[in-house]
Order: sequence, then C-alpha cells, then structure tokens
Amino acid sequence: MTYFLYVFDLTGVFFFAISGAIAGRKNEMDIFGMFMLALVTAIGGGTLRSLLIGVTPPPVLRDPAYISLAAGATIVSLFAEPLWEKWQRAVSLFDAVGLGVFVCIGIQVAQNQGLAPWACLAMGLVTATFGGVLRDLFRAEVPLIFRKEIYATAALLGGLVYLLGDLLGMLPRYNIPITTV
Amino acid sequence: MTYFLYVFDLTGVFFFAISGAIAGRKNEMDIFGMFMLALVTAIGGGTLRSLLIGVTPPPVLRDPAYISLAAGATIVSLFAEPLWEKWQRAVSLFDAVGLGVFVCIGIQVAQNQGLAPWACLAMGLVTATFGGVLRDLFRAEVPLIFRKEIYATAALLGGLVYLLGDLLGMLPRYNIPITTV
Amino acid sequence: MTYFLYVFDLTGVFFFAISGAIAGRKNEMDIFGMFMLALVTAIGGGTLRSLLIGVTPPPVLRDPAYISLAAGATIVSLFAEPLWEKWQRAVSLFDAVGLGVFVCIGIQVAQNQGLAPWACLAMGLVTATFGGVLRDLFRAEVPLIFRKEIYATAALLGGLVYLLGDLLGMLPRYNIPITTV
Repeated sequence: MTYFLYVFDLTGVFFFAISGAIAGRKNEMDIFGMFMLALVTAIGGGTLRSLLIGVTPPPVLRDPAYISLAAGATIVSLFAEPLWEKWQRAVSLFDAVGLGVFVCIGIQVAQNQGLAPWACLAMGLVTATFGGVLRDLFRAEVPLIFRKEIYATAALLGGLVYLLGDLLGMLPRYNIPITTV
Repeated sequence: MTYFLYVFDLTGVFFFAISGAIAGRKNEMDIFGMFMLALVTAIGGGTLRSLLIGVTPPPVLRDPAYISLAAGATIVSLFAEPLWEKWQRAVSLFDAVGLGVFVCIGIQVAQNQGLAPWACLAMGLVTATFGGVLRDLFRAEVPLIFRKEIYATAALLGGLVYLLGDLLGMLPRYNIPITTV
Repeated sequence: MTYFLYVFDLTGVFFFAISGAIAGRKNEMDIFGMFMLALVTAIGGGTLRSLLIGVTPPPVLRDPAYISLAAGATIVSLFAEPLWEKWQRAVSLFDAVGLGVFVCIGIQVAQNQGLAPWACLAMGLVTATFGGVLRDLFRAEVPLIFRKEIYATAALLGGLVYLLGDLLGMLPRYNIPITTV
C-alpha cells in the first residue's frame, strides 16, 4: 500500500470511528463501549475483506495506527459532545468521506489479489459498508444499509467510477479523490 | 465440484435467496435491502464454511452466478408479491430443499479438506443454517434456528443420512436427492 | 499447546458454555437452542481469533472435546435448573474464570504466530470476549461487554498481567492461575 493510499485509509478509519463513537454515545454506552463501537465501525469492513480474500492477519493486527485512531476518535467525540447538534450534518459528511475512501481501498486490495473486477467491486462495497453493519448489529438495530439504500447506492456508484477510471488508466493518485467526491 | 453438485448448489442458493428476499420485504426493506438479505441468506452458510476450513476466497467471490441468482430471486420475489399468501407453504418448502442441498454440499467440501466425519457434519450444518442465522440477525431478531429446533434437527438428520450413504459407498449422485427428501 | 494449557482451555470452554446455556434458557429456548448458544459462547472467541490470525481450521473443528463439553454443559444446566437462583453468584464466577483463562490462551496463541505484543493483547481480549458478544447478538440484545465495562476491564488487566509476567520470564504454568485470579 502506497503512502498516499495509507493516509487516505487512516482518514477513512478516523471518520468511521467518529461515527461509531457517536452512535455508542446515543445508546448510552460508557467510554469503553464507545471505543469498542468506534473500533468495530472503523475496521469491520477492512477486516471482513481480509478474511474473505485470505490475507491474514488483517491490517488492524499489523499496524497499531488503527486502534490508536479509534481511541483518539472516541476521545474527540466525548469532548466534542456539546457540538453534536451542529455535527448532524458533519457526521453524514464523515460517513460519506469514509465510504468513498474505503470503496477505493477495498477494490485496490482485491485487485492486488487477482480477483475478477465484479468481485473487486463487491469487496469495495464490503469494505465500505460492513463496519456500519456491525455498528448497528451491536446496537441491536436493523443495519442502516438495509433500510436506506442511499449509502449502498453511493458506494456502488463510487466503486464503478473508480473501476472506470482504472480502466482508462488513471493513476489512483487522482482517481481516489474524484471517486470520493 | 462436479457439474451435478454445482447445479444442486445453485438451486439451494436460489431457494434460500427467495426466503431472504421475502423476509426483507416483510421488514419493509426496499429492493436493495431485499437483495442484500437475499444474498446474505443464500451465501452466508457457504462463506462461513469456507472461512472456517481456510478455503479463500469463498465461492461467492469466485463465481458471479451466486450474486446473479440472488438478484434474480429478489426480482422474482418482487413480482410475485400477490402470490405470497399462497406461498407460505412454498417458502417452507424452499427452505427445506435449500437445507437438504446445503448440508450435503457442506459435508462434501469438508471431506475434500480431510476433516474428521463429525467435523464434516458440523460444516454441513453450518453451511445449511448460518445463512438463515444472518438473515434473522440483520432483521434484529433471535434467529429462527435457536427457537424452532425442527430446522436444525432436519439438517442434522439429513447430514447423518448423507454420511451413512457415503459410508455404504453410494454415489453422491444418488445420495443427495435422497438426503434432501 | 501443552497439556496444562489444554486442560485450562477446556475448563474455560465448559464455564462459558454453562453461561451460554443458562442465557438460552432465560430466552425460553429449547434444549437445542441452549446447546447452540452454549457452543457459540464457548468457542466464538477462539474461533474468531483463529480466523483473524489465519490458523484454520479452528480448534473446534479439530478436537471433538469442544462440542462434547458444550453438550455436557447444556445437560448440566438443564438438570441444575432448581439451583439457578443460588447460581447467580456462581455464573459470574464462571464468566470470570473463563475470561481469565481465555485471555491467556489467546495471547499465547498469538505470540506463537509472531504477532506484536499489543496485537497479542488484542487477540487475548477477542478470545475472551467475542463468545459473549455472539451469545448476546443471537438473543437480539446489545452485548453486555458494550454496556458493562467491568468485563472488558478485567480481561484487559488480566492480559497486561500475563504479558508482564511473560516479560519477567515466568513460566506460563505459574502465570495463568495468577492472571486468572
């Protein structure tokens, strides 16, 4: 994974972790529960992807940055509590950015493993959405992705854009920001 | 996997996908949620089995037929909505057929990996039941298999019949339909 | 795995299985549901750990002792039903013993795979807590570990004690009971 991709990955992880920590707070979890939910939301998608394509151990066990970022996002969420009302829009933005980044990373990792394009697309979607599915499962709710198709549709479109850009020979360097938008 | 087994596998996938799509509809999911639930129900068991015995990537990432069938089953379920009342019996039938087929396939795949007979039986049960467990988890319900032992008992009996037939040297070709019945 | 560690492992499995079976009974599951919940609670943590560090098939598929113990624990739970009121304290004790044992085993297995100390600690926590998470998920409840931080804190402390003892060159033989306490 190039340095560029790595920075994007960590950005997505941080944004998803914030979304998980806030969700935990809404369920009246304590700081530990919030951290767990932040971590699961942030790394659930990438970890399932790793298991499915047989690359073990998954990134979260190889690089302490992921757990550290989840811990940091939890603390940020706690201190920023008074700002939450204003954050409603921002949280959706966080989700959207994380989604776009993770779709691209999932596709790229799957491509490196030699999977067919449609399977790479599926891995992009899994990477982008499974963290949120776990977040909702652990709160005993029907996952958002099953109820609001907008997230999945956005991830699917993003993945298609990325694959198209890839086909046209674009460098990931330019492709990822475009897809994220 | 022989051609014969493959056709049976796809049949089971289609039947389980129908069951998942209808379950999603009952939870007032949109077409995308139905598709996701159809896919998860259809491939959840086989995918967990693949992960457990260490055969990656799982079938769903190697053969586009699985995702295509789940999509087809979702569309069939949508158009056949007026028939659902009459389908109540049929859905149970779908479940039963899928169950029988998946038990046999799970056992056979595990046998190919050299697992002990009792572990093969366990893999047959996992293949047959875990898709339904995921279907219920994603609807935030206690999985049916934990509440109605009939499904698990049927799968267990089917698996034992299959193993017995295998012991007696029967060809899978004849054994699978018998087990399914 | 040494004989000593193996006996401890089975002890932890039995205690967690009891906790799972009793939880199933409280949800009015039949004997089969109780067994399933006992098994999932007992082996969920170790199985996820195996998948994450890429050691397949997981222990539960290699050694019939795990499934047998879960079955035994289910039967014990059924017959001991009148004693449950008195067991309230004991169940917590069972959980605590299982937790301590599993943390140590998780860490040791991860160390054998050459993971970094912090990742070994994470695997110890996963081994100790994920069975309980599955137990609660399958009962459609928010997992206890997300709500009561005492379990996770205890497991984390136990893991740190174990790692510290390991650093000081203590033999696991003496280290595990200390950690468990």
